Amino acid sequence: MSLLDETISAIRPPDQDAMARAREHQDRLTKPRGALGALEDVAVRLAGAAGACPPPMPEPAALAIFAADHGVHAQGVSPWPQEVTTQMVANFLAGGAVANAFAASAGASVTVVDVGVAADLPAASGLRARKVAYGTADLSLGPAMTGDQAEAALAVGVEVARDLIEAGGRCLITGDMGIANTTASAALICAYTGRNPAEVTGRGTGIDDATHQHKIDIVRRALKVNRLREADGFAPEHRDDALRALAAVGGLEHAAIAGFILGAAAARVPVILDGVIAGSAALAAVALAPAAAGYCVAGHRSAEPGHAAALDHLGLRPLVDLELRLGEGTGGLLAHPLVSAAVRVMHEVATFDSAGVTDKEG
Amino acid sequence: MSLLDETISAIRPPDQDAMARAREHQDRLTKPRGALGALEDVAVRLAGAAGACPPPMPEPAALAIFAADHGVHAQGVSPWPQEVTTQMVANFLAGGAVANAFAASAGASVTVVDVGVAADLPAASGLRARKVAYGTADLSLGPAMTGDQAEAALAVGVEVARDLIEAGGRCLITGDMGIANTTASAALICAYTGRNPAEVTGRGTGIDDATHQHKIDIVRRALKVNRLREADGFAPEHRDDALRALAAVGGLEHAAIAGFILGAAAARVPVILDGVIAGSAALAAVALAPAAAGYCVAGHRSAEPGHAAALDHLGLRPLVDLELRLGEGTGGLLAHPLVSAAVRVMHEVATFDSAGVTDKEG
Repeated sequence: MSLLDETISAIRPPDQDAMARAREHQDRLTKPRGALGALEDVAVRLAGAAGACPPPMPEPAALAIFAADHGVHAQGVSPWPQEVTTQMVANFLAGGAVANAFAASAGASVTVVDVGVAADLPAASGLRARKVAYGTADLSLGPAMTGDQAEAALAVGVEVARDLIEAGGRCLITGDMGIANTTASAALICAYTGRNPAEVTGRGTGIDDATHQHKIDIVRRALKVNRLREADGFAPEHRDDALRALAAVGGLEHAAIAGFILGAAAARVPVILDGVIAGSAALAAVALAPAAAGYCVAGHRSAEPGHAAALDHLGLRPLVDLELRLGEGTGGLLAHPLVSAAVRVMHEVATFDSAGVTDKEG
Repeated sequence: MSLLDETISAIRPPDQDAMARAREHQDRLTKPRGALGALEDVAVRLAGAAGACPPPMPEPAALAIFAADHGVHAQGVSPWPQEVTTQMVANFLAGGAVANAFAASAGASVTVVDVGVAADLPAASGLRARKVAYGTADLSLGPAMTGDQAEAALAVGVEVARDLIEAGGRCLITGDMGIANTTASAALICAYTGRNPAEVTGRGTGIDDATHQHKIDIVRRALKVNRLREADGFAPEHRDDALRALAAVGGLEHAAIAGFILGAAAARVPVILDGVIAGSAALAAVALAPAAAGYCVAGHRSAEPGHAAALDHLGLRPLVDLELRLGEGTGGLLAHPLVSAAVRVMHEVATFDSAGVTDKEG
């Protein structure tokens, strides 16, 4: 059995009993019922993931930044030169990026994974050299990856998740770096949700109107040339189609992040999704293993319109909503203290009985 | 000169030059311009408050929970018995409340201030006994406080801010405890913003439709009996009216929090506002000293409708928006890691030049 199949078959649905106990416990705590809003749902979700109430504290957190390049960059969908992917990998390794600053704040480790950068990278501490290819092929002309490449990148993600958990990580956070990767994300979101390219294709890190329209056209062409429309008989709920879509229009980092999510779910460890790259990768993961959704927490809602569509489809509510559009894992890292606080309540807050506080009348 | 006048006259407008330098610095960092969304504004705001770029890290944080009771409780506006205020003070001091758990997560100290609880509280470490009165009078029948009481409670807030900053606090967070205090908040918001009671009066920690309508009527009556409507010639931009409104319909904790905000602003230390209690208290503070708004960060948007109205009036955007409706400082504490992360970026992230990352084309 392949690593992917093994991982998928290890994923159990969230524990309904632990979730019910978590809800009951919340109602006994010294606060009005429901007063912690969406954070109560987070604590319940983590109880379901762990199969325990209270769930273990999601600390320490471990961020993995999956870096890769994209053949579609040649179509002029981004104002950034492709070498910025390589340069930013160096920046992560030197500790100079926003993700590093946020990780320091959250007490999270940072692991950078070269799963497909279009250049040879010097070995460095903190860098995992797991290159599957020197970037993808151009998704607007045909499949971005072969099926084997997509499976290899998925396996990289599974293995990184496993390693980070073995090293003590109790909450994984997805990160990504790859110039032009919002184009691949938009195409994935269309494929898995059936939405229209014009609805879900955004401006990424900043493009003008003409480039935006061009990007929409590229996404539309990618869906057509790769036969990922309903009219083509494409049905992402079938495993073969789910995998084919990921290979056809995903990036190597999307595939790795999908594997990372599956690896976390198989180990019953929660994974905080960053932005639109993670959201689109999660659609692939959940198409392959629907129960994996119960292990995901949506860190934030990015400024990309496709992200909201992906989160809707996944049934996830984002915790942070501050118009970030950076990637790298920054939105996931910002959400980590919120997740942690939600779980800490379950461990440390007194009940009405234990604290001698009178419950609400009636 | 009174402590209040001294404090108000010490408040300087935010430093525009430091804010401009903060904006320029953000644009040189290795991220697309504007990619940190609302967090970039937070960093700029803190630069303006400190008069320095980068601003100092807002750590450690210090939470003050101001506790007081409300005469209007007798009108049946809350389903909780009044003694819960006292019981929750004991819970804070024992470390068993949600605020304690969130403070532990944020590394914030917790100080509880009895500024007006309607019971004698035993001395305890972590409790400041600064009782101005055994709760307020019923605001729906006449002024809740005398002018002297309101000024005394304001002074308590100023002094607590000063003490926490002297003890090393680099970011203050407002907290409150007082059964029925959302009724006073709604009345304050109407007085300072001119909004209608039906628009801004919410369900607090949980009431049914009939009680909600009754609460709206009580707020309307309070504004009328205390002559706080425009038709009465009331004009909150005048200092006398601003103080009179606070005394007439505020709680002792509202007055103390207003003083706490003024004390932070006078010391150029940022203050994270919690929910609707803090928002309404900030309206009073800003009516007395408009420049104080520049030292405030809105921690979250609570589920109370009046809170959004208060934040609109203050020109503040909340950082966390998760339908919390607990008070205690919980929303402010949750926002602290976000504020910290925003400032850390200014200290630690590399520039395009220093990291050798190519800037966007064009």
